[in-house]
Amino acid sequence: MKAQVLHHYDPALTAPTWVTMQDVADPKIHKSTDVIVRIGGAGVCRTDLHIIEGIWRPHTDPTGSALLPLIMGHENAGWIEEIGPEVEGFKKGDPVIVHPKVTGGTCIACRRGHDMHGDGKFPGLDSHGGYAEYLHTASRNLIALPKTLAPKDVAPYADAGLTAYRAAKKAAQQLLPDQSAVVIGAGGLGHIGIQVLRAMCAARIIVVDISDKALELAAMGGADHLVKADGGEVEAVKALTGGKGAEAVLDFVGEKGTTKKGIDMTRSAGSYYVIGYGEDIQVPTVDMVITEKNIIGNLVGTWAELTELMALADRGLVELHTKHYALADANQALKDLHNGLIKGRAVLVP
Amino acid sequence: MKAQVLHHYDPALTAPTWVTMQDVADPKIHKSTDVIVRIGGAGVCRTDLHIIEGIWRPHTDPTGSALLPLIMGHENAGWIEEIGPEVEGFKKGDPVIVHPKVTGGTCIACRRGHDMHGDGKFPGLDSHGGYAEYLHTASRNLIALPKTLAPKDVAPYADAGLTAYRAAKKAAQQLLPDQSAVVIGAGGLGHIGIQVLRAMCAARIIVVDISDKALELAAMGGADHLVKADGGEVEAVKALTGGKGAEAVLDFVGEKGTTKKGIDMTRSAGSYYVIGYGEDIQVPTVDMVITEKNIIGNLVGTWAELTELMALADRGLVELHTKHYALADANQALKDLHNGLIKGRAVLVP
Amino acid sequence: MKAQVLHHYDPALTAPTWVTMQDVADPKIHKSTDVIVRIGGAGVCRTDLHIIEGIWRPHTDPTGSALLPLIMGHENAGWIEEIGPEVEGFKKGDPVIVHPKVTGGTCIACRRGHDMHGDGKFPGLDSHGGYAEYLHTASRNLIALPKTLAPKDVAPYADAGLTAYRAAKKAAQQLLPDQSAVVIGAGGLGHIGIQVLRAMCAARIIVVDISDKALELAAMGGADHLVKADGGEVEAVKALTGGKGAEAVLDFVGEKGTTKKGIDMTRSAGSYYVIGYGEDIQVPTVDMVITEKNIIGNLVGTWAELTELMALADRGLVELHTKHYALADANQALKDLHNGLIKGRAVLVP
Amino acid sequence: MKAQVLHHYDPALTAPTWVTMQDVADPKIHKSTDVIVRIGGAGVCRTDLHIIEGIWRPHTDPTGSALLPLIMGHENAGWIEEIGPEVEGFKKGDPVIVHPKVTGGTCIACRRGHDMHGDGKFPGLDSHGGYAEYLHTASRNLIALPKTLAPKDVAPYADAGLTAYRAAKKAAQQLLPDQSAVVIGAGGLGHIGIQVLRAMCAARIIVVDISDKALELAAMGGADHLVKADGGEVEAVKALTGGKGAEAVLDFVGEKGTTKKGIDMTRSAGSYYVIGYGEDIQVPTVDMVITEKNIIGNLVGTWAELTELMALADRGLVELHTKHYALADANQALKDLHNGLIKGRAVLVP
Repeated sequence: MKAQVLHHYDPALTAPTWVTMQDVADPKIHKSTDVIVRIGGAGVCRTDLHIIEGIWRPHTDPTGSALLPLIMGHENAGWIEEIGPEVEGFKKGDPVIVHPKVTGGTCIACRRGHDMHGDGKFPGLDSHGGYAEYLHTASRNLIALPKTLAPKDVAPYADAGLTAYRAAKKAAQQLLPDQSAVVIGAGGLGHIGIQVLRAMCAARIIVVDISDKALELAAMGGADHLVKADGGEVEAVKALTGGKGAEAVLDFVGEKGTTKKGIDMTRSAGSYYVIGYGEDIQVPTVDMVITEKNIIGNLVGTWAELTELMALADRGLVELHTKHYALADANQALKDLHNGLIKGRAVLVP
Repeated sequence: MKAQVLHHYDPALTAPTWVTMQDVADPKIHKSTDVIVRIGGAGVCRTDLHIIEGIWRPHTDPTGSALLPLIMGHENAGWIEEIGPEVEGFKKGDPVIVHPKVTGGTCIACRRGHDMHGDGKFPGLDSHGGYAEYLHTASRNLIALPKTLAPKDVAPYADAGLTAYRAAKKAAQQLLPDQSAVVIGAGGLGHIGIQVLRAMCAARIIVVDISDKALELAAMGGADHLVKADGGEVEAVKALTGGKGAEAVLDFVGEKGTTKKGIDMTRSAGSYYVIGYGEDIQVPTVDMVITEKNIIGNLVGTWAELTELMALADRGLVELHTKHYALADANQALKDLHNGLIKGRAVLVP
Repeated sequence: MKAQVLHHYDPALTAPTWVTMQDVADPKIHKSTDVIVRIGGAGVCRTDLHIIEGIWRPHTDPTGSALLPLIMGHENAGWIEEIGPEVEGFKKGDPVIVHPKVTGGTCIACRRGHDMHGDGKFPGLDSHGGYAEYLHTASRNLIALPKTLAPKDVAPYADAGLTAYRAAKKAAQQLLPDQSAVVIGAGGLGHIGIQVLRAMCAARIIVVDISDKALELAAMGGADHLVKADGGEVEAVKALTGGKGAEAVLDFVGEKGTTKKGIDMTRSAGSYYVIGYGEDIQVPTVDMVITEKNIIGNLVGTWAELTELMALADRGLVELHTKHYALADANQALKDLHNGLIKGRAVLVP
Repeated sequence: MKAQVLHHYDPALTAPTWVTMQDVADPKIHKSTDVIVRIGGAGVCRTDLHIIEGIWRPHTDPTGSALLPLIMGHENAGWIEEIGPEVEGFKKGDPVIVHPKVTGGTCIACRRGHDMHGDGKFPGLDSHGGYAEYLHTASRNLIALPKTLAPKDVAPYADAGLTAYRAAKKAAQQLLPDQSAVVIGAGGLGHIGIQVLRAMCAARIIVVDISDKALELAAMGGADHLVKADGGEVEAVKALTGGKGAEAVLDFVGEKGTTKKGIDMTRSAGSYYVIGYGEDIQVPTVDMVITEKNIIGNLVGTWAELTELMALADRGLVELHTKHYALADANQALKDLHNGLIKGRAVLVP
């Protein structure tokens, strides 16, 4: 099959191209519940740039470069091409979206529903992913798509959407109608988070961003208040919340000072959700005690949560803005992402 | 002051009039945190008919008729007329809605936020209520109204709305976007419940009613599916839920067979919420075990929940249909309610 | 292999013998994750008597008697005899306890961790169980036993213990140290429930039983107060709880009037847990509304919960009283159970 | 009355004495629900040393020294001396413990049960406390003591005990029997935390401390595993938890590097509870994302939680080690605390 392959890390992200289109062996069924998916769309994610930079090497490639060559792509949707002999409920041709974490399903984490904390592979990060014509996965990872949703339009839900969904759901399950949620960063993930909050709770939604265009998009997604991030955003949020801050602050940026600001604009007894990443959080223990705030980590989401998100998408309660590129143009898509030229999410279409 | 007074029970509800307009002594401040509210509106509730019938005598008047004469009216809003010497945060003229349960605020139930399970009075049921020009209450019971909301338009939120809100909130906090909620009875309370569900969760909402008009109203309030209660409603709900029933069923009727049907259309591991009342629930223990269903009682709501509901109302997420009557026409309002002529809720305006 | 086989229902439970020892075909591996367990112990459960009576026919044998001949036995532990080619983490000879519900693990119920609500078989009820030398199950159902626990001593945890554990855990997660839990029926399940409550919360535990011996056992298991069920048990519980009733009532009997008494001794806003079954629950809707009580169904438990229970057993926080019978004496064990002669649980040992 | 009064801050904690015994005006009833308590015991807390150092000035004395002279003492118990005219349920002579935060009870935080997040005073920190013969408080702050508990023996529960209780309760409500909790620091608060965990959940308890004596005490309180804090405590905890860390880590130290170690020994998806304070928490956002850990602040506890803690103490499930000093010896008690000579908690007895 054709695939876009990463052969070398590029810490400075300055190489003219990063991946190479080439013929590779087709993935094969090994186990009775294996599945081969024909890719309909593979999302291009900032994490892919971080892989190229080598940021993930300590986690996925600790001995140096044994992982390369690697086919990236962890946000995948398409049609079933082939199934193992014990796969039930799916057949060739079915449209599916693919949960990104491949696990056995029998460890205690999976048994409690927390798939992403189970042992297993994460294709696109530590094994071959979906920048290709076909993807190897397992029947446990499949979610059937309703007819309303085409693979190339929903692929980014598999990771970006799911991450935003899980964090927003955690917050929504705590938030009451007299309370407020702040979303910092109304970009690819943040924009989904806003829509999820709007669908799943009745709290007032305050969106903070440096970009007027992002704020416009946020207003369409259901934001009640828009705050331009011009240095006074903590005060602006406090002014909107009776001087006390918001019960939930979802930080989709996690760098350039948003962590301190995000915690500062969180109300006493409220929660600050870490979704975007980059800088360190630094907070005095005495402040954590006096305010009783919570700092909540967030990692992708469960298979059940991806099902929930597809239910929202199916009913039009969440919409995703995508830009399609041919698989052959993967480098262009990655460059455009790196250069801030993507509105919403880029998707590779073989 | 003028007040409409109940002097006699009428078990058959056949007397030509039930309450008598007369002059009574003005309520007075006794304790330092007492408050007198000038009534702007007093909701007329089916519970008032039940009081007249004598259904509440075992609970509120166990020795026979020591309770009468009684001024009914437990859904009250208005303006502060007078405050005790230690009331803080309120002054004469402030518009307020009045939480119906008057408690000391120091028992363990109140301290855990469950006001309505605390010891205390429930004016309109066991002491004088708001079918009058003035009402005696306490500062703990007051919620300031925003300028968007007039007392006569919101009074029924104090009990009918609060009851619907609490039950719908309980369900909403459990419901996920791939799940379904059934509302049985889209009348006064049910119609609010539908709007609350729509605002606070992303589950699909199925509404069951015998009236086409009620179903039309339900559709405007956010129902996704309408089911005419023609005998086949259990099958209809199952057909809409993959044959398995709904994760939450909110029964705002509670009589004429809805309890059995409601439990039957509840999915395994789901919850059936009792809000309306009248008949007995009868269910085999073996069914409770095999299906692991829950049957959930619901009683009014807390002061904090009334605050939450007013936040929804303030932002237009919940709307109430009211019909205003002069205080002098209280008997007419009660008769109209008894005869099924009220759409939404009747409110007495002094 | 040798097995005890049920050939005929006996509605009156009067036949001299119910099961027949005979040679049957050994179970075989069919799917890649199938497992054959050599039985070390198979618990004898009251549900087995109910199967013989035919009470389960509507659920497991709706067409009449297509289910028979059946090998009963749904509480199984033993050693792995054979594994399918894709079973990981287990090998021949490993001691295991077997979760009773065999599911594919991919439906939404399983994915959320609620195995027992997934589609599948329940060996011993609707397919061949463990009254035999070998049992067919799947790797998903296995939990490795620590060295402290022998199969024949723990087999009843697989269903009786798990059922008691799940109900007591639900209650324990709600109960606070100033609150009370009532256990009705300190028999096989109830006795485990008492120990689980004692281990998992700090509420006061009140045990109600008709038998002095059972109450003695309850005291050893951690009960704080013992109430002889002599007709005045509702008043006795109220006297122990400031006149208000207990926040949690766990009914391990579910017949002979315990449902009404159990609900009556539940405090307002508290929960009544249905575990034992037999009679119908009958309760006025108005009482559910005025008291805001909850009636909570309970069904076995999840694989994760069986893991939790084995952790309690491993550390000696829960102990099980068992009486061992040879497999050949299965009829004797069933008769002894029927005649109330079993203290704790009977276990068949091949 | 006699009182020990703080007149000057001492940032270096080097002055020979800190407080001065003198005659001051008796506290008086001002409001109808005010209460004067005759002090039976006033706990001496490390926070008192921090007040003397001036660490709390930014919070309680922002303009410099307007707060002084101050009577410290925020852990108080005694007998009612005088009540305001509208106090119900208490009379002169009743033994009580005093919740430390004085609030009006009507703000939304109080109404949801979160007293310590309401607006109000914290006697001993921002107004006169209990290093004296009498204390001014309010009826909302009182909890009647059972006969089993003497004021001078329980005073430290009012803050130190309550803080440990709330954090341990939060953890206990999450912890399952197959999981582990780490307690860092088995001192005054930590020792109570261990006992609360033991009473309220069945998780394994691992205690980390630098002191052998503290570890001995921990073992008596219910610890399952003891870890000497000699630099290898992260590895030791991992070795005890299958290499994965503990689901809950309660840090009662919060300085000298325990925050990094505490977070490192927390399992993925687990929670690290901040109780002790001193240093800053510093953690990369990427780690919060990859591990999905939570960092949970903790602040004293609610009135209801103090009631729960007294229920535990009444039944002997939690015990407190105290050392009594005459009020005249307050400086000695503070010096002994500063010099690490107090086992358990020091209590001043007027």
